[in-house]
Amino acid sequence: MNDSKKLLFNAHNDANLLEWDPDNTFNRNPKDLETGLTKLFTRMLELQYRMYVEKKTSLLIILQGMDTSGKDGTIRHVITAFHPVSCRVETFKIPSTEDLAHDYLWRIHKVLPQRGFIGVFNRSHYEDVVEVRVQNLVPQTVWSQRYDQINQFERYMAENNVKVIKCFLHISKQEQKKRLLERLSDPAKRWKVNENDFKKRKKWDQYMQAYGDALSRCSTRWAPWYIIPANKKWFRDWAIAKIIVETLEQMKIKYPKYIPLKIKDNSKSI
Amino acid sequence: MNDSKKLLFNAHNDANLLEWDPDNTFNRNPKDLETGLTKLFTRMLELQYRMYVEKKTSLLIILQGMDTSGKDGTIRHVITAFHPVSCRVETFKIPSTEDLAHDYLWRIHKVLPQRGFIGVFNRSHYEDVVEVRVQNLVPQTVWSQRYDQINQFERYMAENNVKVIKCFLHISKQEQKKRLLERLSDPAKRWKVNENDFKKRKKWDQYMQAYGDALSRCSTRWAPWYIIPANKKWFRDWAIAKIIVETLEQMKIKYPKYIPLKIKDNSKSI
Repeated sequence: MNDSKKLLFNAHNDANLLEWDPDNTFNRNPKDLETGLTKLFTRMLELQYRMYVEKKTSLLIILQGMDTSGKDGTIRHVITAFHPVSCRVETFKIPSTEDLAHDYLWRIHKVLPQRGFIGVFNRSHYEDVVEVRVQNLVPQTVWSQRYDQINQFERYMAENNVKVIKCFLHISKQEQKKRLLERLSDPAKRWKVNENDFKKRKKWDQYMQAYGDALSRCSTRWAPWYIIPANKKWFRDWAIAKIIVETLEQMKIKYPKYIPLKIKDNSKSI
Repeated sequence: MNDSKKLLFNAHNDANLLEWDPDNTFNRNPKDLETGLTKLFTRMLELQYRMYVEKKTSLLIILQGMDTSGKDGTIRHVITAFHPVSCRVETFKIPSTEDLAHDYLWRIHKVLPQRGFIGVFNRSHYEDVVEVRVQNLVPQTVWSQRYDQINQFERYMAENNVKVIKCFLHISKQEQKKRLLERLSDPAKRWKVNENDFKKRKKWDQYMQAYGDALSRCSTRWAPWYIIPANKKWFRDWAIAKIIVETLEQMKIKYPKYIPLKIKDNSKSI
């Protein structure tokens, strides 16, 4: 079994997140993975370039997780290996008035990566079955329909050559406490913390339940969920890079066929 | 005089590009600049982060130049130093039907960087006074009005806290020939070349004239043009990084004021 398979959440199992250890590093240590990570970064770049040239497929990487789980950190330490020319990060915050005037997938669809591009979603439509549910923003009859809608939407993406990877960054409640305190004591990070973070923290178990259901209901063959043990940042970074590379390799992206130019290929003609 | 000042094109001078040496490296050599570049990259990242936190200003970097002048290369080697979370590259190709159904600045305005973000434009509204002019896509009465319109638009940006840097990547006709031949002989780069590149090359002097006018008419106090000698890639990269850092430093971006939280800052309360 390859490494990313171990993190793969099987579709339609019951995802009890309590059974997944956020400290798990699969017997790896930071030194083991350091060289590995550098190699993965080089490969990410090569495969991104090939995708950009081929312009037939796209990759969408969805990052979800509790506050401080490392979504920004993953972007800063892993996604940064991609070249900015064909990689776009979209951060989904509180929906705008215009977003709310539409169906919940409207703002998502609008920014799906174009062919040849890699899109990275910091939060996503999964907020509409997690945040919305825990905070009671719409009735259960509404959010409970969404799992199937999301599966259909993601299947449509797959059928239209948008490959989807979904990563749940799994940290423990204890680890979140440690990280919040670190942020409070660092003037450069203090701005990241607000009272809302602490209110949400009190509903930890409800969030785990909502995430568990989202992962169970929406891990599909065409858009699998990976549960990333994220207490150890070095493991989190390596695991996500590994999943990205394995996924891109499986896509078998090719350079376009050689098409001879009508002009003559020698220096005299230009 | 600091380094980026030497590259600054003075507003309302006549820009005869023939008088600017694309091989100029101001007596620098690659080794000199190597360490310098690494330091500039670190500083770019720090200042980007500060801008992202402050969320009051944006930076827009416009890259223009002939085919093979290194717009993509600059993005791959310099812009990549920024973190993708708040840096966006926009590539302007042939306008879409929707773009053409609007005024020429519509597609530009739509993607200006939001507050706290850095936008990088690979080509821009300057195509509307260069490409459009050389290829006779609109009458002279139309494009000749655009210099003032562009100046007003860029002044509006400045007044609304979008700082603009415009870089013209200046290569010689001989250097372009060398680069086109390199691309033709490299299977991984071959796709970049098409017949149109050679047609445009035949109008080199007309392009230089059109660029010269655009630089003369639109280099302003609030949105200066820099002429980057770009025959030597190592000098081009360093010069652009230097200009970016000097510009960001001048903006004097600050972290937001410390605002105490209502919750208690100790581990017991969370």
